[in-house]
Amino acid sequence: MKVRVFVSLKNGVLDPQGRAIHHAIEGLGFSGVSDVRAGRMFELEVDDSVTDAMIDEMAQKLLANMVIENYRFERVA
Amino acid sequence: MKVRVFVSLKNGVLDPQGRAIHHAIEGLGFSGVSDVRAGRMFELEVDDSVTDAMIDEMAQKLLANMVIENYRFERVA
Repeated sequence: MKVRVFVSLKNGVLDPQGRAIHHAIEGLGFSGVSDVRAGRMFELEVDDSVTDAMIDEMAQKLLANMVIENYRFERVA
Repeated sequence: MKVRVFVSLKNGVLDPQGRAIHHAIEGLGFSGVSDVRAGRMFELEVDDSVTDAMIDEMAQKLLANMVIENYRFERVA
């Protein structure tokens, strides 16, 4: 079974990478994009013994910096 | 409207970041995780004039390295 963990910056945390990408999108001539936020994604291949609580613990200890980031995860068949 | 773009390494491309995370997960004592792949996520705030074709172009020119990465995107209400 596959688990996808999405990590994104909390609201209010400055995102220089997102700003740079936004700037580059405008530089390429695209209009209509008002904001860009950059985040990370992790795909874990897990067996059935891995519980949601374990995934929470992995995310909080290892994948996300809980001071400035939020995470969510989804299980994929 | 929000668009999420997910960028991940193509199959067969070595992923040292994912390997390091996998190693760290095992080091923390978790079992049942057989593989970890690291990727990136971008959240774009766009207006209705931004078409799927434009998002494809942004992803291919700017967000993903098409030599080693794939991307997909979804629109969120």
